[in-house]
Amino acid sequence: MSDRPNTPLLDQVTTPADMKRFSDAQLVQLAHELRQETISAVSETGGHLGAGLGVVELTVALHHVFDTPRDKLIWDVSHQCYPHKILTGRRERIRTIRQKDGLSGFTKRAESPYDPFGAAHSSTSISAALGFAVARDLGGVCDTGHGDAIAVIGDGAMSAGMAFEAMNNAGHLKKRLIVILNDNEMSIAPPVGALSSYLSRLYAGEPFQEFKAAAKGAVSLLPTPFQEGARRAKEMLKGMTVGGTLFEELGFSYVGPIDGHDMEQLLPVLRTVRQRATGPILIHAITKKGKGYAPAEQSSDAGHARAKFDVVTGEQKKKPSNAPSYTKVFANALLDHAAQDDRVCAITAAMPDGTGLDLFEKRYPSRCFDVGIAEQHAVTFAGGLAAGGMKPFAALYSTFLQRGYDQVVHDIAIQNLPVRFAIDRAGLVGADGPTHAGAFDVAYLTCLPNFTVMAAADEAELVHMVATAVAHDSGPIAFRYPRGEGQGVEMPEHGEVLEIGKGRIVSKGARVAILSFGTRLGEVRKAREALMQRGIEPTIADARFAKPLDEEMILDLAAKHEALITVEEGSVGGFGSHVAQLLAENGVFDSGLKYRSMVLPDVFIDQSSPDDMYATAKLSAADIEAKVLDVLGVAALKDKRA
Amino acid sequence: MSDRPNTPLLDQVTTPADMKRFSDAQLVQLAHELRQETISAVSETGGHLGAGLGVVELTVALHHVFDTPRDKLIWDVSHQCYPHKILTGRRERIRTIRQKDGLSGFTKRAESPYDPFGAAHSSTSISAALGFAVARDLGGVCDTGHGDAIAVIGDGAMSAGMAFEAMNNAGHLKKRLIVILNDNEMSIAPPVGALSSYLSRLYAGEPFQEFKAAAKGAVSLLPTPFQEGARRAKEMLKGMTVGGTLFEELGFSYVGPIDGHDMEQLLPVLRTVRQRATGPILIHAITKKGKGYAPAEQSSDAGHARAKFDVVTGEQKKKPSNAPSYTKVFANALLDHAAQDDRVCAITAAMPDGTGLDLFEKRYPSRCFDVGIAEQHAVTFAGGLAAGGMKPFAALYSTFLQRGYDQVVHDIAIQNLPVRFAIDRAGLVGADGPTHAGAFDVAYLTCLPNFTVMAAADEAELVHMVATAVAHDSGPIAFRYPRGEGQGVEMPEHGEVLEIGKGRIVSKGARVAILSFGTRLGEVRKAREALMQRGIEPTIADARFAKPLDEEMILDLAAKHEALITVEEGSVGGFGSHVAQLLAENGVFDSGLKYRSMVLPDVFIDQSSPDDMYATAKLSAADIEAKVLDVLGVAALKDKRA
Repeated sequence: MSDRPNTPLLDQVTTPADMKRFSDAQLVQLAHELRQETISAVSETGGHLGAGLGVVELTVALHHVFDTPRDKLIWDVSHQCYPHKILTGRRERIRTIRQKDGLSGFTKRAESPYDPFGAAHSSTSISAALGFAVARDLGGVCDTGHGDAIAVIGDGAMSAGMAFEAMNNAGHLKKRLIVILNDNEMSIAPPVGALSSYLSRLYAGEPFQEFKAAAKGAVSLLPTPFQEGARRAKEMLKGMTVGGTLFEELGFSYVGPIDGHDMEQLLPVLRTVRQRATGPILIHAITKKGKGYAPAEQSSDAGHARAKFDVVTGEQKKKPSNAPSYTKVFANALLDHAAQDDRVCAITAAMPDGTGLDLFEKRYPSRCFDVGIAEQHAVTFAGGLAAGGMKPFAALYSTFLQRGYDQVVHDIAIQNLPVRFAIDRAGLVGADGPTHAGAFDVAYLTCLPNFTVMAAADEAELVHMVATAVAHDSGPIAFRYPRGEGQGVEMPEHGEVLEIGKGRIVSKGARVAILSFGTRLGEVRKAREALMQRGIEPTIADARFAKPLDEEMILDLAAKHEALITVEEGSVGGFGSHVAQLLAENGVFDSGLKYRSMVLPDVFIDQSSPDDMYATAKLSAADIEAKVLDVLGVAALKDKRA
Repeated sequence: MSDRPNTPLLDQVTTPADMKRFSDAQLVQLAHELRQETISAVSETGGHLGAGLGVVELTVALHHVFDTPRDKLIWDVSHQCYPHKILTGRRERIRTIRQKDGLSGFTKRAESPYDPFGAAHSSTSISAALGFAVARDLGGVCDTGHGDAIAVIGDGAMSAGMAFEAMNNAGHLKKRLIVILNDNEMSIAPPVGALSSYLSRLYAGEPFQEFKAAAKGAVSLLPTPFQEGARRAKEMLKGMTVGGTLFEELGFSYVGPIDGHDMEQLLPVLRTVRQRATGPILIHAITKKGKGYAPAEQSSDAGHARAKFDVVTGEQKKKPSNAPSYTKVFANALLDHAAQDDRVCAITAAMPDGTGLDLFEKRYPSRCFDVGIAEQHAVTFAGGLAAGGMKPFAALYSTFLQRGYDQVVHDIAIQNLPVRFAIDRAGLVGADGPTHAGAFDVAYLTCLPNFTVMAAADEAELVHMVATAVAHDSGPIAFRYPRGEGQGVEMPEHGEVLEIGKGRIVSKGARVAILSFGTRLGEVRKAREALMQRGIEPTIADARFAKPLDEEMILDLAAKHEALITVEEGSVGGFGSHVAQLLAENGVFDSGLKYRSMVLPDVFIDQSSPDDMYATAKLSAADIEAKVLDVLGVAALKDKRA
């Protein structure tokens, strides 16, 4: 605690109302203190650092000029919200961020009235803000009242189709709406796409100084009588513009580019916009991710997400790892195949590092495609590649694949195209919480005809599944694997092609069979150890495939045991549901089978460690053990469950 | 047959190769004949008319200038593909279109090598074409070889985010790629959105004649030595441009606007582009939907989709209807509530007619929002409206809601916002075939925490469900209903608010209970009649809710019958799977229950009548009857099943 920064002004701010009386000079000082506090907090907790540091001045200026929470301030993605949380009554809890029972790492409606619309996936803010603006004009009743609707969106997020759809609709509806384009030329990875080049051209070589003068001129115009109204305001704003055609063509007034770290530009522009805007307006602010903290500014990802770190050196305190991450195992396996097969190519949607494809990009740049935050396009583009004779691997997080679901159905499944889906972050993911959980992919993919759906039980299995996907040319195939480290199992030199729709018996026992799909197999093994001490030896099987099911193996397990329990890291509707359908259709239930299906519960589980989240989900070894005992009618010893 | 048009040139064309030798004048004549043939064919079969008539000249010009199927011609949405099918070996079967065992109403890979990438949902063509272009350059192996990749996309489809994502990526990759923007100022309904206004400005007041002269000049330049290469071609194409900044900013060369019905413009432009294009290029062609057929040109939807009609008068031969359509019932019920409650508002994604919201738009224009083809935005915009205190009804087809799935999860379910989803076209839809089937919504929505999911058993139930949704302010709620007419049941004056999670017993019987979710209830009743004649009187229940389940009713049904059969118009993973999970968790299977779950089969079912498709799906009354007999071990009489 002794090395906490000195923050005399920040200490006076409990809510944004406390900043209203601050002078512009004090606001500059407040921003400085807020930056130090943010660095200090994240050094203790880990979390998203660079994004927050990039919007410190913007956060201060917005909360000073606008009237939050009456004015609705919506942060896109919202991993840049730490300074916002510090200013809006959550400073005391900021050092609990992303931890169990702590603050969310993102904005969250349930957490604060200053978070009118939560986020974590990108590019939703303009749609949400437009909803608030329209609700305001229609007289919708809102606890915090209705004022301006303000979306703050990064240049990476702006390249997603959803943001374009929202701009297109907002430009049409012509409601007063404020969009702040926070342009740091970096979403998570360096930016890709034509829009990004366009944005760069907008401010290439434009000295901010000239704009600064214009902005100062603008604020001096503020007392202009209201009678002149909209026309005059528009002219003035237009005069401040040095580019922006594309946004203007979509019906937005465009202001900028301005230096998003310079209060002398931010404050007058925001004041003018607040007083004069009539329709939709876009303010283009140039910022620097990681601004003001050298170790972040200098890192390749600008301090995107950090472990706990030393404030002075910036050195991160990462736990030593025991086994390679699933992500890395996938990436290395794919590289192996790419070396053998020219048709193997890879697609990521702005997550080259997160998916491990940064390695692929370095080795085979012509066969690796970062399409930007654009999952819809990513999926159909992969479809075109497959139809054109390539072997595309679309590597996406489970939760983000939801963005391309219709394309998965319409372009891939219906056409039976051999796109390979490498689904990372399957299951519960820890600190990122419910917005990033990969809970639904098994349910929403296994219902699709033509699809093959696998889950890796460990990192060696993942290597086999990559090989299987490379070889599977007759239709779409998906394999899922979790966030984090593998189990530390022995690794095969090369992956072997698995027989489609065939599971494996892991160990033979009696009375009860536990049929696992995915990495809960480790917990199942632990449960078996515990059960053995009670004289119960369950049979353990690894399904490998949720679709097609290994019908023979499953019916045999059902026939030879009095109980059958499925375990998976997914919602109801997935693996267990397909097993139940198989058993029902085959009349297995007619004469009785103690069947249970252990799935994620019907709640969104708040962030914690993955292990703790799985305990909450009742999918830990102890829960599996308890389920077996319950099904077999054996009383559990109390001490085992305490 | 006697009134078939006279088509001497068209009669010579079996494949596009047969048109290569035609003179430009003959191509004009061929287009004329192709138009007459299209009108004649659709008059016999019904189907999409206006879109095809709008691209007759474009279809002829593309197949003449380019080398299909080596060059990949990808029609966006592809309901405009009838002339294309006539020219590509399918003229003989064109009068079977959209019928059982006939041609698909859309392009389809399985149908022809001239359909390199099928479609039916919009805005996928640029992504797919870019995939082909990249596969070509990487040496992908394709049965038909690799040439140019050409996407033909309408202005409505261009406004969807996915098209923007694809343009953004294509502009970045800089591969040779041809996009033809077929701008008819009309997607299905009149266009909305800022992009549409922008496109209009691009050609407002620009006389095509000027461009025609430029185009003729361009073709005279064709023999220019190749040495001058890319730079010269680019300059020339630039010289042909009269606008297009927005596309150029995204990295595309822009050509146009040109008159898409004038061969003297189309042919030289396409020839020039084919010879000179290096990177991505966009050709902006202005066309008229329904062109050349007065009854289509004059109708409000430009002859979008027609029943069979009289060629001379244009009069449609619609079957008389016995009951109001579900769509109309929904729309009228919503109007009732909107009159009582100012907070009720409605959102459609470019389908005001299809969803019945055209009525709402007329009555309450300020509370009705057509956001364009933009389902992602539609969902989150509805979320913003809900958070802002309105009662938004997002009216979407089941199959198109897939486009907004991530937004449903991330913005609505996680935040527990009271958005009402009116899901039209649930289940199998008939002539539009598998791409339009609403098969997966129950599976992909019931797995989401916080959601309430209903299905209407008949049109009276739908009225109650609208009332229930209006009243349900504590979280998201969805209700699904099918395409087509209701059952003809007596209609309530006003809807009554149903108790959440409560089903109803329709009729009491013994031994077997049939638990229906949705409009299969009609077939269940028929099955009951047949079973009664055999002395079997099943209990029939209408679940109403797939989530939350009526646990009490279902467990009671299971306890009091030897068999329980669920029936639904959806895939596995939906209602039946939740019932199975409930029964398993409660140990109902332990001592035996003859449980069966009748769901859509694991195949995409080709177009036919809905009844016929349900027979294929084994979800007709006869199938339900047979299932009951099978479960009870009663031999079915052969004549009953013949």
